[in-house]
Amino acid sequence: MFFASDNSGPVPPQVLEALARANDGHVAGYGDDALTRDVTERLRALFEAPEAAVYLVPTGTAANVLALATLCPPYATVFCSPVAHIHEDECNAPEFFTGGAKLTLVGNSDRMTPDALRAAIEAEESRGVHGPERGPVSITQLTERGNVYSLDEIRALADVAHDYGLPVHLDGARFANAAVKLGATPAEMSWKAGVDVCVFGGTKNGLMGVEAVLIFDPEKARGFERRRKRGALLFSKHRYLAAQMDAYLQDDLWRDLAERANARCDQLVQGLKGLGLTVANDRHANIVFFEMSRAAHRKVQAAGAVYSLWGAAEGPDDAPALARLVCDWSVTPEAVTAFLDTVADAIA
Amino acid sequence: MFFASDNSGPVPPQVLEALARANDGHVAGYGDDALTRDVTERLRALFEAPEAAVYLVPTGTAANVLALATLCPPYATVFCSPVAHIHEDECNAPEFFTGGAKLTLVGNSDRMTPDALRAAIEAEESRGVHGPERGPVSITQLTERGNVYSLDEIRALADVAHDYGLPVHLDGARFANAAVKLGATPAEMSWKAGVDVCVFGGTKNGLMGVEAVLIFDPEKARGFERRRKRGALLFSKHRYLAAQMDAYLQDDLWRDLAERANARCDQLVQGLKGLGLTVANDRHANIVFFEMSRAAHRKVQAAGAVYSLWGAAEGPDDAPALARLVCDWSVTPEAVTAFLDTVADAIA
Amino acid sequence: MFFASDNSGPVPPQVLEALARANDGHVAGYGDDALTRDVTERLRALFEAPEAAVYLVPTGTAANVLALATLCPPYATVFCSPVAHIHEDECNAPEFFTGGAKLTLVGNSDRMTPDALRAAIEAEESRGVHGPERGPVSITQLTERGNVYSLDEIRALADVAHDYGLPVHLDGARFANAAVKLGATPAEMSWKAGVDVCVFGGTKNGLMGVEAVLIFDPEKARGFERRRKRGALLFSKHRYLAAQMDAYLQDDLWRDLAERANARCDQLVQGLKGLGLTVANDRHANIVFFEMSRAAHRKVQAAGAVYSLWGAAEGPDDAPALARLVCDWSVTPEAVTAFLDTVADAIA
Amino acid sequence: MFFASDNSGPVPPQVLEALARANDGHVAGYGDDALTRDVTERLRALFEAPEAAVYLVPTGTAANVLALATLCPPYATVFCSPVAHIHEDECNAPEFFTGGAKLTLVGNSDRMTPDALRAAIEAEESRGVHGPERGPVSITQLTERGNVYSLDEIRALADVAHDYGLPVHLDGARFANAAVKLGATPAEMSWKAGVDVCVFGGTKNGLMGVEAVLIFDPEKARGFERRRKRGALLFSKHRYLAAQMDAYLQDDLWRDLAERANARCDQLVQGLKGLGLTVANDRHANIVFFEMSRAAHRKVQAAGAVYSLWGAAEGPDDAPALARLVCDWSVTPEAVTAFLDTVADAIA
Repeated sequence: MFFASDNSGPVPPQVLEALARANDGHVAGYGDDALTRDVTERLRALFEAPEAAVYLVPTGTAANVLALATLCPPYATVFCSPVAHIHEDECNAPEFFTGGAKLTLVGNSDRMTPDALRAAIEAEESRGVHGPERGPVSITQLTERGNVYSLDEIRALADVAHDYGLPVHLDGARFANAAVKLGATPAEMSWKAGVDVCVFGGTKNGLMGVEAVLIFDPEKARGFERRRKRGALLFSKHRYLAAQMDAYLQDDLWRDLAERANARCDQLVQGLKGLGLTVANDRHANIVFFEMSRAAHRKVQAAGAVYSLWGAAEGPDDAPALARLVCDWSVTPEAVTAFLDTVADAIA
Repeated sequence: MFFASDNSGPVPPQVLEALARANDGHVAGYGDDALTRDVTERLRALFEAPEAAVYLVPTGTAANVLALATLCPPYATVFCSPVAHIHEDECNAPEFFTGGAKLTLVGNSDRMTPDALRAAIEAEESRGVHGPERGPVSITQLTERGNVYSLDEIRALADVAHDYGLPVHLDGARFANAAVKLGATPAEMSWKAGVDVCVFGGTKNGLMGVEAVLIFDPEKARGFERRRKRGALLFSKHRYLAAQMDAYLQDDLWRDLAERANARCDQLVQGLKGLGLTVANDRHANIVFFEMSRAAHRKVQAAGAVYSLWGAAEGPDDAPALARLVCDWSVTPEAVTAFLDTVADAIA
Repeated sequence: MFFASDNSGPVPPQVLEALARANDGHVAGYGDDALTRDVTERLRALFEAPEAAVYLVPTGTAANVLALATLCPPYATVFCSPVAHIHEDECNAPEFFTGGAKLTLVGNSDRMTPDALRAAIEAEESRGVHGPERGPVSITQLTERGNVYSLDEIRALADVAHDYGLPVHLDGARFANAAVKLGATPAEMSWKAGVDVCVFGGTKNGLMGVEAVLIFDPEKARGFERRRKRGALLFSKHRYLAAQMDAYLQDDLWRDLAERANARCDQLVQGLKGLGLTVANDRHANIVFFEMSRAAHRKVQAAGAVYSLWGAAEGPDDAPALARLVCDWSVTPEAVTAFLDTVADAIA
Repeated sequence: MFFASDNSGPVPPQVLEALARANDGHVAGYGDDALTRDVTERLRALFEAPEAAVYLVPTGTAANVLALATLCPPYATVFCSPVAHIHEDECNAPEFFTGGAKLTLVGNSDRMTPDALRAAIEAEESRGVHGPERGPVSITQLTERGNVYSLDEIRALADVAHDYGLPVHLDGARFANAAVKLGATPAEMSWKAGVDVCVFGGTKNGLMGVEAVLIFDPEKARGFERRRKRGALLFSKHRYLAAQMDAYLQDDLWRDLAERANARCDQLVQGLKGLGLTVANDRHANIVFFEMSRAAHRKVQAAGAVYSLWGAAEGPDDAPALARLVCDWSVTPEAVTAFLDTVADAIA
């Protein structure tokens, strides 16, 4: 009954098989190998973007900060939500990789609105050289609070950004879960919706450790490769990153894994609502935030369920406390059923 | 006949087995898992350093620059050889991670001498605040030109550094090959010789992508973990880094792999010398630099041997040109024999 | 009728005289001259801090960011108000000089409260290595919205900071105006109230361009001098910075200049209130924020008064719009009277 | 008899007068004042570059590093001589402001040669992404060893740089002295010789603290202003920087001051050679390096002459030791004569 994170699960057998398949003989390193080139073409095909610059990096933070550093001068600011991963969970990595760019927090929700974004962008030009230049807009899809932006919502935000000549970065650590939820193609959920740089996450969706960064206009990719090397993020035995991505793309494995995770989450949401509990995020894909009393949470956790409370660390036993459940591809229907039973007991 | 790099070979089966073994169920991420803790203890035991702070990172450059950043303020300079990897092959990563430290190049060889190091350190204090503060001393073992420092040589350099209160970093991308060559224990070739922070490389010696950083005095480790996270270098599915290291330590696999690579190199050296060719590095472990005419190199490469010329890109056909051959664990005696035969033909 | 800024006025004759007096013969540069040493001792005496490390720098931003960089590792965050100059008006200079530290904005006012500060500090440790380390607390006295913290308020904030082992930085660009307003000595308004690093501003209070940074515990000053040099902020002809500070300290000129500016501000506040207008900041020293209709502002500005509106650039003519008036030492009572008369006409 | 530095002298009366003249009433800050605009136009006229972007900054290091940061990405390297001020005397400021660029040291002299520069540039592209991108070429005129490049020499270096698409930065801390020595106009010694960004130094040539940075193609100036603000280097009371430059340009004062300094240096050179002593730099303007025994240096310094020995701190009494003499505008013929007499006595 492990729902604490989608960074904690195992990888499906296809990934280990692909690593074994790639583990043959000597090949050039640093991405200059046939498998990397092949995977690059297949990513371009998947995203219907034959000209895109494509890079593999080992962590989600790496994907985000290399993208931002390539788009954003050090004297600029990045627009993002106040709960954006780049702001809350990367230990100053964006500030580091950009050379000291700021993050301008837009609105007070996990989803930015076009109006709030426009207002924030406008506000950034009122101080001339005393304030930073306007930099990229960063959108997380799906969001850190478990919600999926619709394609129209992404497009609307991208339109605002482009009105001001600002590029759009999409943190797609959970890109697959969102695309599957929306029934959208990767192209529809990225460049067709106005995204300039897209992170296609693998690690949370079943890979060991690899994300793809796609820069759709290669002119915008200037410096990425050296920044990656300089960031100590260029794998020498690059074929093993490519092999994971190879498995991910083969037979649309990325889609299957996301479907499984999303289905388990649907099962959870249905079950929790059926028990009369409040689910906080309405646009779920593979994450659900729900409320229950602290006392009930303690019972459920004592029964072996692993997940995090959200918000204040302490509080009264009977007051509702928010918790986050994350499903990765390996969660079973049985585990979900067992969890729901435990919850039912706890709230009884 | 692939001798271009030790970053290009496959991994031994034990590594894939360990990944498969670790690929079971959900475990906490970011290093907070039992396998990581276990591997940490075994590294401490291997290095006879029960108090050491131990960290796993995905690349050799990451290991070096996180170590240096932890030891070196931004307004200081790092002392290293002019051919140090941190100077020539990391695309400004040390300058980046330290926040702008300089590198002071010591001497004109791949091995620093105590006198040259002392002179360089002395020279750095002659300009007061106009010049950088003295920072760490960085030694590569074995060196980028394929030579192994003796334990006494490391100790002599460390003594100079410590005379000035400067810590010693050892870039051990090829630590195993050097230790095996010397018949030295990891402790003897690191903290017992005066090294304060040691990189125990895995990637070049048969792993997919992991290096261990050991900081022997945990007081010196302050900030490392946040720098790693901020450097986008903290793996979420950390168990897969630990699994590689698990295989590496099991039954001293690290030693066996290095012995194999070194033996192939011995075979090469013997063979090349037997053909009357000049070998440039006298203290070889798994790398040999040798000289042959460009015309001969072209013939050998045309026959399928893969390796790099060193130095000027162009030159007369008959003049000697230096080339580098690197053996990893997977090079076979037959491949070496075939190479030597090809060389014999080419120079005939 | 110039009230736009206290960065816009001339310097009093004593400053030019001091520059002329110092303009004699050759002296060593970079601060190694007798006048700098003398001024250093007099600043220590003024602040009753004989052990303090004292540095002169040319700009207020320089003083702030060198102080923060000396106190704050790159992987930490600085706690400050959301309208802090270091956040809004330094174009990412704090992020730059610290190497990428974040700024955690506390509360929603120009004055932080102990409770809000405590909550913000507590919140920063809930994410372990995924979030920044807690860094310094930065207080602006007087604030960017023209209010003076009481000594007890500073002490209360410093106590919270010290509860967590965090140092306190005081941005004293308008230190003199605040100290004079409170009738407090420099020691009472700095280290006796718990401040660890204090900026004693000169530029806004009549000097050409110099601020003093006092670090009361010299152990906390490690690296400041090299960071200043590395920041291109070490004046070679340092005597001319010292000469300005010499004039500033002579016969307590700093106090007189602030008294004059504060008195003009009192006169403004009294006059504006007398006209029935709302003054937004209750704890004024030399700055007043007041409200008036946009139409009235336009008339007053058309009559030659120079000052800035605050907040939204556009709005309805009759709605109240906030504006800021700043008095420097050179503002005359006649200028204030003329302004008040113009306002009276405009609102009639 | 003060010859230690040209950072140590007083300013001529015209500078104090200009400061007094500018010290009138309120003007906008941060460079948005009429005097700054006027001085900007006059600098453009002086350099015959009506489109140039022109900026005033308070220190020579600031001028250099802001120029380099504007021209050079963080993953590039700057080509300069091994004794360049940016390498030896700025305490990592270039590395800091560029975000970690390296400095590639060219040749082993204070003057780079086209061949050595070409070789260094070529060598920087042999390692692909593992090494930095080629960045600007930085030339100091006159050099740190007191030599003046001829216009043809500057042009030849610029041609090499431009062959590779690299911009040329000229560190002109002593621009005036060099231009006067050559009898060249500022345009001839800057953009007409291929320089893209020129520092027109004021501080060493009689000003209190100001340098002008001219970027001849304004397209290359993108980001300079925000970098200056972010570098804490934008003066709020900017009129006082402009006033110094106003005096400097008025009646070609900059030329007169340099002529005086150069004449004193000529007098020194003639006198030292007349005494049979070796002068090390053949292309002197206002600096002379000469050799004498340590014993003689001690006598001369004991007699009150202030200057620095160069090179090893210790050495035998009778061996020749190099020393540097620098003349600023305020050195008198009598001081030179007194010095030469002292030297004559010492070597007798």
